[in-house]
Formats: sequence, C-alpha cells, structure tokens
Amino acid sequence: MGKIVQSVEWNNDRLILLDQTQLPAQTVYIELTEIVDVWEAIHTLKVRGAPAIGMAAAYGLYLGVRDSKEHEDDFLLSLEKKAAYLTTARPTAVNLCWAIERLLNRAYQETALGSQLPKIKAALLEEALFIQLEDEEACRNIGEHALTLFKDDMGILTHCNAGSLATAKYGTATAPFYLAKARGWHLKVFAGETRPVLQGARLTAWELQQADIDVTLLCDNMAAMVMAKGWIQAVIVGTDRVAANGDTANKIGTYGLALLAKAHNIPFYVAAPTSSIDLQTMSGLDIPIEERPIEEVAAVLGKRTAPEGIKIYNPAFDVTPYHLITAFITEKGIVHPDQHGQYNLPIHPLLQKK
Amino acid sequence: MGKIVQSVEWNNDRLILLDQTQLPAQTVYIELTEIVDVWEAIHTLKVRGAPAIGMAAAYGLYLGVRDSKEHEDDFLLSLEKKAAYLTTARPTAVNLCWAIERLLNRAYQETALGSQLPKIKAALLEEALFIQLEDEEACRNIGEHALTLFKDDMGILTHCNAGSLATAKYGTATAPFYLAKARGWHLKVFAGETRPVLQGARLTAWELQQADIDVTLLCDNMAAMVMAKGWIQAVIVGTDRVAANGDTANKIGTYGLALLAKAHNIPFYVAAPTSSIDLQTMSGLDIPIEERPIEEVAAVLGKRTAPEGIKIYNPAFDVTPYHLITAFITEKGIVHPDQHGQYNLPIHPLLQKK
Repeated sequence: MGKIVQSVEWNNDRLILLDQTQLPAQTVYIELTEIVDVWEAIHTLKVRGAPAIGMAAAYGLYLGVRDSKEHEDDFLLSLEKKAAYLTTARPTAVNLCWAIERLLNRAYQETALGSQLPKIKAALLEEALFIQLEDEEACRNIGEHALTLFKDDMGILTHCNAGSLATAKYGTATAPFYLAKARGWHLKVFAGETRPVLQGARLTAWELQQADIDVTLLCDNMAAMVMAKGWIQAVIVGTDRVAANGDTANKIGTYGLALLAKAHNIPFYVAAPTSSIDLQTMSGLDIPIEERPIEEVAAVLGKRTAPEGIKIYNPAFDVTPYHLITAFITEKGIVHPDQHGQYNLPIHPLLQKK
Repeated sequence: MGKIVQSVEWNNDRLILLDQTQLPAQTVYIELTEIVDVWEAIHTLKVRGAPAIGMAAAYGLYLGVRDSKEHEDDFLLSLEKKAAYLTTARPTAVNLCWAIERLLNRAYQETALGSQLPKIKAALLEEALFIQLEDEEACRNIGEHALTLFKDDMGILTHCNAGSLATAKYGTATAPFYLAKARGWHLKVFAGETRPVLQGARLTAWELQQADIDVTLLCDNMAAMVMAKGWIQAVIVGTDRVAANGDTANKIGTYGLALLAKAHNIPFYVAAPTSSIDLQTMSGLDIPIEERPIEEVAAVLGKRTAPEGIKIYNPAFDVTPYHLITAFITEKGIVHPDQHGQYNLPIHPLLQKK
C-alpha cells in the first residue's frame, strides 16, 4: 500500500524537508534546526511549490527565534530582522512573504496582549502549524469537490506538479487522485513530463507512484494523441494566478492542453485555492509572464541537447483564457461560468469574504 | 554566410557521412570505403532520414562490389548477397530496400544489354548518384512550391527534422527556409525540440543555424503560446506516410500542432514527396503506429528524468486527420483539398503516373 508523500513536516522539534532537488533518483529527508539552513533549502529549491515554501519559511522563522533570550521589545526587532532575511531566500515567492507576515502579525498580537516571551514563541509555532493545517484542509476540500466531477475508472490528464510535494498534503490538482484512491476508485492518471524543468516526470509521476496510484508518464506532445484514443475523460491542472475574469496563468503548456481538450470535448478543470484567485488582476493581459534562463531548454538536467548559441524562447507560464475552462475547483466549492459563459469572480457568491 | 549541410556525399571515390549521432555537440564527417562500414553507419543511426539512408545504402552497395573480380554471373550473385546483407542494417527502412532494388535492377539491365563488368560497376555508381540527384531535385521543387504559399518576414513553425540532414539537400519541410534565405527573405523559423528524441533541438535547430537562418528553439508545449502571440503564420512538417484520403502519419506531436494551428487560424502544410504518398493505405486507421522503448521518455541523452519503474507510453508517430491539413506540398506541385474539403489522392491529377 502506497503513501501520500509529505514534503514539509514539523516533528520532534525540528523541520523535516524532503529534498526535492534529488527526486526522483534519491529520496532524501533533511532535518533542519537553524534558520540559515531553512534559508538555504528555500534558496536552492530543496523545497518548492508556493504553499510548501510558505510553510517552510514559517517554521524557519520560528527556528530563528526559539532560543532567543531578548526582552520582548528587542525580540520583535530581532524577529523582524530574521523575517526580512528569510524573504531574501526567494524574493518573488508571494507565499513566503505571506506566511512570514502571518507570524509577524501573531507576534504583534501576543505582544499587545502583554504575553511573555515563552508564550509569544509558542504562538509563533502554533501559527506555523495552523498554516500547514489550513493548507492541508484546503487541498482535501479541493479534492472532495473535484471528485463530484469525476467517476471511477476515468482517465485524467494533469500537467506540471500541483501535487502533495508542493503543498501540506494532497496537492491541489492531485488531491482528487489521492482521495479517489482512498475511496477504492481506480483513476488512470496521465502526467505530462512538463518540459523544460520536467516537474511532471520528476515530481508528479514520482509522488503518485509512491501512493500506488495508476500513473502513466507522457511527453507533453503526446497529449493530443491520447485524447484522440479516448483515454482521457478530464484534464485537471493547478494555477499560479487566476484573474478576475477567469483567465488563468499556469505552467507553460497548460494553454495548449486546454485547446486540445476543447477539440476533443474533454472538460478542462483548474484546481484553484481561493488564495490563488487575484481579484485585483482584471484579465490575463495583466499577468506578467516570467521568461526563464534559456539553459533550461538547451539542456536537460545538465546534459546539453541544443547547439551552442541557438536562440531560445523560454516562457515559464502561459495564460489560458477563461472560455476554455470548464470550472474552477476551489476549497469552498466549484465555480462554474454563468449562463453567458463568463466568470465574474469578484461577485461570485463562493468567493465573498465571510 | 552560412551553408546548407550535406549529410551524404560521394567525393574522391569515397562516401562521406556526417555522423548525426554526435550532433549538435560535435561536427564529425566520416569517410567510408567498405560496405561493412556503411552497414554499421546505417545500423547505428550515424545516417538517418529515409532518403539519406537510401542514398548511403546505394553508395554502400557500390563500395561492396567495385573491387570485385568475378565473372558477370558470379558478380550478380555476389551483388545480390551484398544487397541482402545491407538491408539487414535497418530492416524496416523502406527507402533502404527501394534504393538497393534500383541498383539491382540497373545491374540486371546492363547484364541483359551484354555490358562488361567495368561498365556494370560504372552504371551502379551512376544509379547511386542519380538517386541523390533526384532527391535533391525533389526537395528543391518542394521548396519552390512551398514558397508560393509563404511571404517574406513570416514566422513559420516546424517539428522534428524533415531537413537537409535527412535528405540529399534542402530537406522537405525545411526546403522553403533554405530557398527563402537564398532569395534574401527573412523567414523566422520556430523549431519544436521534439521530445523524446529531440530531433528538433539536436538536428533542425543545428542545421538551420549552420545556414544562418533565423531559428528559435521551443519546447513542444510552447507552440500554443507563440501561436497566440501572433508569431506564427504557417506550420510546415514532413511526413512518414500519407494515406489515400490525406490522413498523415508523422513524428509524435504533429497532430497536436495541427489542432493548435486550426484553433489559431494558421495554415498547416505537409511537405510530402510523392514517394511518401501511399495510395494503398486507405486512411490513417490503416497506418500502424510504432511504439518505441520507454527509456526514450524516461531519460534524455542517457540522463534519467523519471522514476524507476514508472509506466510510460511512447508512440513514435501520430496521425493527423486530413481535415486539419491545409495542403500537401509535393515536388510536382501543391495538392489542395477539393470543394468538399476532401483529399481523394488516387485520382488527383498531380499524382497520376506519367
């Protein structure tokens, strides 16, 4: 019987991280007790995936101050310095800043309540654990909602790694696979390898294999053919950011898959925690697309595949227009388009703040 | 100023082959004077691409008998034995058998005419040279016809390597790029890397770079995005086999590109020498699809990318249905669909035997 891999864990007063840079060749867990080691693990991508980075940073900040002896005022100053230091590990990771901000706010609250140093420290650890629990709960709920759209024996294609490795547990796009397995269903998962960085081959195929889930690895350019063969009944992907109109940024290749799914009348779902829905961004036109180093395309895991000096285009993400998306699956429920085929997310009932 | 790479050349009484297994890292030409070396070069994929294999085999057969001292009858027997030996280098390569058959027929003709051994040998070399010249001429004509469909400054996407490396010169799908360059046009070529074997990255990008053609390498899953950006005005690919109804087998990924092109209203052309049009095959349903070893997907140039024991599907080809193909570009001219959108190739005027 397989198991759901956990990439970030707080255990026995230390932070346990699965070193994702060594996957799939080696399964190595590292134990961290110092903030500098957490900084290094985030910086060198040992931990990756927005929620997982946030969790690691939260535990890292706690590790940075737990042995601190300062008086409360100096403590807050020291905490802020360490928080600022941790955010430099991956400056563009939004979840990293968000998680650290949550711990800072918690410390201010405790201080305002007049709490003593040991209580403040305990609160910081509690907040870090909350972050992880909330993420696990959100992923599980996404999985539950997704399963209302799937049936036993379906073939389902996914892309990149919106998996357990990137989150507290279950992943977002992969959550229904794990919950279906627990239910005794047999979903046939197809994982696109996801060039150039091969998150599908190295991570998604690996983590589903660990859980004894039926997974078949494909090169990205094989998706159309397996769809034509009738092997795929749904596509589900994660997302980096959903705009207010439903346009969705995700790993490069997602937009092409959405077009291929439409051509084969296959539903195309986006697993989107509400935290990824950015109502301030009007449409996909407003989402900046990061271009990554061309070496990612010119070589595979350090092995050169392309001629020296060749021109390369390497966008990290693409934008799938809302009209190709059958539904968004959030932790609060499923968001369908309105009767005009539009997503007006800012006024959707599920997305209203309570 | 760049040059058009020639992968097969007869020069100074020897066969010169560009060792394609060493591309793009090393540009190594090997000189062959013995039939066993030609067998080995074909068998180990130093020479690849149907027309190039045929040419190499023809020269190889000539090399196998040029120093022969047998009387004519024994000569024919010896020639047939060597022909049978050469075809074992790659048993499924249709062009290999076809080229060798041509040389055998030529030998029978000369014998029937009462020619002496030196004349028969000279005729064999002449036939091999004819095969190469005819292929070069066919490729050049495909290029000329293709250019009537293209315009200066267009962006054109291609897939795999239907290039000069695979043919006598110019290639099929790449022929318009070389002719456009000679004409002073500036086509912007986009080459998909073509997982799993990376012919696009290793071969097409390299040979176009040698000719100073503006080429940009993409991962296969980036095609949809560059189409959406408006960078692509046409797609052109080669083919392994065209069925009588126009269904077209080509390297895996071609069918997906055809769907993406249609979704973006971009014409999708197949460069198809008439020798690749198989009127005996009724439709794509009758084209067997070769599945290749899963190691091609699980590793890149020997570097493991996927977990051990993972299930993999690795079809070498896919079939693009005729209705996604804007036109076939043959050496005899352009084949458009009829007014019902059908290709009835057996009765097409261009494809009638003279």
